[in-house]
Amino acid sequence: MLEIMARKAKSGELALIEQIRKRAGVGSGAVQLGIGDDCAILRPRAGEDLVVTTDFTLEGRHFRRDWHTPRSVGHRTLARGLSDLAAMGAKPVAAFLSLAITRNLVQKRGWIDAFLDGFLHLGEQFGTVLAGGDTSESPSEHVLADVVLMGSVPRGKALRRSGARAGDFLYCTGSLGGATVELAELEKSPRRFRAAKASGDHPHLFPVPRVKAGQALLKRGLATACMDISDGLSTDLAHLCESSGVSAEVEADRLPLHPLARGLDAEAGLAAALHGGEDYELLFTAQAGTKMPRLIGGVPVTRIGTITAKRKGTPQVTLVGADGVRTELAPQGWEHLR
Amino acid sequence: MLEIMARKAKSGELALIEQIRKRAGVGSGAVQLGIGDDCAILRPRAGEDLVVTTDFTLEGRHFRRDWHTPRSVGHRTLARGLSDLAAMGAKPVAAFLSLAITRNLVQKRGWIDAFLDGFLHLGEQFGTVLAGGDTSESPSEHVLADVVLMGSVPRGKALRRSGARAGDFLYCTGSLGGATVELAELEKSPRRFRAAKASGDHPHLFPVPRVKAGQALLKRGLATACMDISDGLSTDLAHLCESSGVSAEVEADRLPLHPLARGLDAEAGLAAALHGGEDYELLFTAQAGTKMPRLIGGVPVTRIGTITAKRKGTPQVTLVGADGVRTELAPQGWEHLR
Repeated sequence: MLEIMARKAKSGELALIEQIRKRAGVGSGAVQLGIGDDCAILRPRAGEDLVVTTDFTLEGRHFRRDWHTPRSVGHRTLARGLSDLAAMGAKPVAAFLSLAITRNLVQKRGWIDAFLDGFLHLGEQFGTVLAGGDTSESPSEHVLADVVLMGSVPRGKALRRSGARAGDFLYCTGSLGGATVELAELEKSPRRFRAAKASGDHPHLFPVPRVKAGQALLKRGLATACMDISDGLSTDLAHLCESSGVSAEVEADRLPLHPLARGLDAEAGLAAALHGGEDYELLFTAQAGTKMPRLIGGVPVTRIGTITAKRKGTPQVTLVGADGVRTELAPQGWEHLR
Repeated sequence: MLEIMARKAKSGELALIEQIRKRAGVGSGAVQLGIGDDCAILRPRAGEDLVVTTDFTLEGRHFRRDWHTPRSVGHRTLARGLSDLAAMGAKPVAAFLSLAITRNLVQKRGWIDAFLDGFLHLGEQFGTVLAGGDTSESPSEHVLADVVLMGSVPRGKALRRSGARAGDFLYCTGSLGGATVELAELEKSPRRFRAAKASGDHPHLFPVPRVKAGQALLKRGLATACMDISDGLSTDLAHLCESSGVSAEVEADRLPLHPLARGLDAEAGLAAALHGGEDYELLFTAQAGTKMPRLIGGVPVTRIGTITAKRKGTPQVTLVGADGVRTELAPQGWEHLR
């Protein structure tokens, strides 16, 4: 029988909504009205555009409940969308959380509370109010989340993927390959999933979206194009090149490897940096003459290559090895539906 | 193994995104940039608030793939959110669709195309642009959708649940009980799910959200409070009373029963109108002196009761029978998590 024939009981959805509402932000500033009516009400400021992104976080695809702590799941659920806002240079405004939970979690409120701990703690760091969402019982044994994030940018100023031009330099923030190597390490002894603290450097379990770096890039007018590295550098750079109608060269020995990736042999470390996903760093371009600071929003910036003109018969992205050998860098990052 | 270790293939998510993008609206008006970057970009007009709602539509909870046609699923997926916008009196602006599909549907594009037919056809009727979303493979055999809808209202003018006052008259649009009775009828011979046409009166399969009625209520300043009837009148009216701090009386013989509900015996027809969900009509209040037109936005309006002062020891909602007998009307509509 479908839910749509089900009868109401106080122990169910209303109680879950109440549990979430109690911990959500109240209406203030841009969020005029939060959880509790048919819709939330936002009041954008004059002269601002609103940017919007939605991201699924599905058990069995993006996390495993027997591995990830609920705190890590909550953190990661929000981090994905915050990273998209960062890529546009946006200031986070509001989050909407749609959450479908399994029947046994309806009773065990501890999992949801810890999930909200992770979600809301990260939200607080970046001024993100939980302004609404939806709840349901999951039709399977999987917890399902979908998060909408809304941010603001000065009108017409959002950073986009499409502005890179031949001759621009190619940069990234932070370091690459950490998330994929941490996950591979954790998979070897899953009990370690439980030991990690949010305060440590855990690029897979507790990634830090580059919200401040994105806002600084926008404010200082440094970038010609920007996106986040969520699916792996080789894949995301191909998207940037397609959107901008350009090609690119990446220099292998310029890539800032995460310490975890540096611990691997050279080839595996390079592969993690090129193809590992969920680094949530920013990938951006700037005119060659731009004086680029070493730190942006408190995060190191590294030049990793150059944008080139698109020519028939040449690769979209070329990898220049430490030995000077040039090879095609095909997208080998993640895709959600194989 | 988690998706996050998966390798890319053109047959997968990118192709699905492309399939959706080809059919989505291009950026225009309030939607400056649609699918294809890290975020969509919206440009709200000066003097307007933005209202936001999110709604899950999950296979096995909100629909069954062996019953509902993909066109009906797509229609219903969008109708839920449009009804929330209608309840605020909002003009639809943009929709964001997060869609997780099963592996075999990745290959069978026909289902998704027909789903999009239903979704986009309803969207066109109400000026809703598909501006973005997310895609994933479902972790189970269930198709999962989450829709975000954004609408605009003149600043500070959104209809809310909280404005009803003692003495106000209580109204609803259209008719009640149709969706629950149609579903019950269809369940008896499921092959009829396939025969229904979107152009007919199918309150369960192809509900018509009262977007124009909501906008007219706002524009003409008629309503003191408004919400949509999605979980059943008895449940939703309790929410309205709670938000407004009032009680209410519903007069049984005033209820506008849908023709399908009138086909039942009197008791069952009344129960369908009081507790059946997914009618997607508007429930609203107006001052007693307000001259209420018979039609709003092309839809009949019926007075169904009165708002009363909240008193200790008396029911929140009282049902006055055709025989004048007064009983407590407890919420018996749907809840998603029992």
